[in-house]
Amino acid sequence: MRKISQKTIERIIIYRKLLKCFQEAGETQTYSYKIANMLNTKPSQVRRDLMEIGYSGSPAHGYNIEELIKAITKLIDSPNAEPVVIVGVGNLGRAIMDYSNSIDSNLKIIAGFDNNERKVNKVFHGIRVFHIDNLKKILNDNKVKIAIITTNRESAQSVALDLINFGVNGILNFTPAKLNLPSSIIVENIDMLVSLEKVAFFSRNI
Amino acid sequence: MRKISQKTIERIIIYRKLLKCFQEAGETQTYSYKIANMLNTKPSQVRRDLMEIGYSGSPAHGYNIEELIKAITKLIDSPNAEPVVIVGVGNLGRAIMDYSNSIDSNLKIIAGFDNNERKVNKVFHGIRVFHIDNLKKILNDNKVKIAIITTNRESAQSVALDLINFGVNGILNFTPAKLNLPSSIIVENIDMLVSLEKVAFFSRNI
Repeated sequence: MRKISQKTIERIIIYRKLLKCFQEAGETQTYSYKIANMLNTKPSQVRRDLMEIGYSGSPAHGYNIEELIKAITKLIDSPNAEPVVIVGVGNLGRAIMDYSNSIDSNLKIIAGFDNNERKVNKVFHGIRVFHIDNLKKILNDNKVKIAIITTNRESAQSVALDLINFGVNGILNFTPAKLNLPSSIIVENIDMLVSLEKVAFFSRNI
Repeated sequence: MRKISQKTIERIIIYRKLLKCFQEAGETQTYSYKIANMLNTKPSQVRRDLMEIGYSGSPAHGYNIEELIKAITKLIDSPNAEPVVIVGVGNLGRAIMDYSNSIDSNLKIIAGFDNNERKVNKVFHGIRVFHIDNLKKILNDNKVKIAIITTNRESAQSVALDLINFGVNGILNFTPAKLNLPSSIIVENIDMLVSLEKVAFFSRNI
C-alpha cells in the first residue's frame, strides 16, 4: 500500500463517521458531493481520498454505503483488540475513560496511571488506576503501543519519553505542552484552547 | 482585512503557542524554518501565513519573537473579556471548566448548564451550573456568542439549535454528533475517537 498521509487518514475516518450517520438515516447509496457538502470540502477531494484506499464509486449510483464502511473499517481498524493506557487521572482523564467505555471500538483503555496515592488502585468506569511506577511492567506485559496523556503541562514531556522507552509509538496529547519527540513517533495534539480561540476569532469576524 | 481561512487561523494560533515556548526558552529571534521544523510543515507555508497577517521577517535576522507574538495576539484575541458557556456538566464538562480556569485568556466560561437537578446551582471550579431552562436569559443578559457542547451525542443537535436561537454563532462541539447547522455558524468539532483512531492507524503502520 502506498503511504497515506495523516490528513487523508483523518478525513477517511471522518467519512466513515458520516457514512454511519447516513446509514442510520436509512440510506444505502451516497455520492461524493453529498459527503463533501456535509464536510465543507470538494467532491473531487472525497473521490481522490477514497481512490487512495482503492475505492471508486459509480457515476450513476455513487457509493454503496455499507461496502464503503466495510472497506474503511478494514483499512483503519485493528483486527484485534488494541490496548491503550492513559496517564493522568484528573477530570479530563476520567472523562476520557468514561467516553472510551461507551464507544464500540477495538481500542480499549486497559489501565490508568497517576502519581497521586489517593487515586492509585481506584477503579473509574471499569478501568483500574496504577501508580506511575508500574508503567514499565504494565506496558510490557500488555504490549501497549498507544497512550493518552492527560497530565498537567509540566509533566507531559517526561511522561511521553517514558512511554516511548517502554514501547509506545503513538501518543494522543491532551495537554497544552508541545512535545519534542523522535519523528518516528506519531503524536496527535488536542489543544482545546487552540480550537476555542479559533471559534472565538470567527465568531467575532463573521 | 482580507478573509483569512480557518486553516490559516488555526496554524497562526499554533505558531503563537510555539513562539511562547521559544520565548520561555530565552530566545528573542526565530526563523520560518525553525517554526516549520517543529510543526512538520514547510518554511514557505509559515512565511505565507505570517505575510497574510501583514508580517514579514528579515532574511538575515528572521522574526522578532516578541513583536510577532504581539501581532498575532492583536489579530486573534478579543481586546475585552469574552463570555463563553458550556452545556453538559459531566466529567468532560468539568474537566474543561477546570482547564479554562487555569489558563490566561480573555475567553471566560461564565456559566454551565445541565438538566440534572443534582448539578443545578452547584459551583465547579468557580463556575455556577444553571438549569438548561435558563439558557435564553443568561445568554441574552451576557451577550454570549460562544458555547461549548459537552452533552451526550443525542442532545447535541437540539442544544446547538437552541444556542443559535439565543445568539450564539461559534460552537465548540466535543460530542461525536455531526451537527447540521446554518453555514453562518462557526463549528469546531473535537472528536477524540477520530484522533485516537488516527494515532492507532499510524502506530500500526509506522
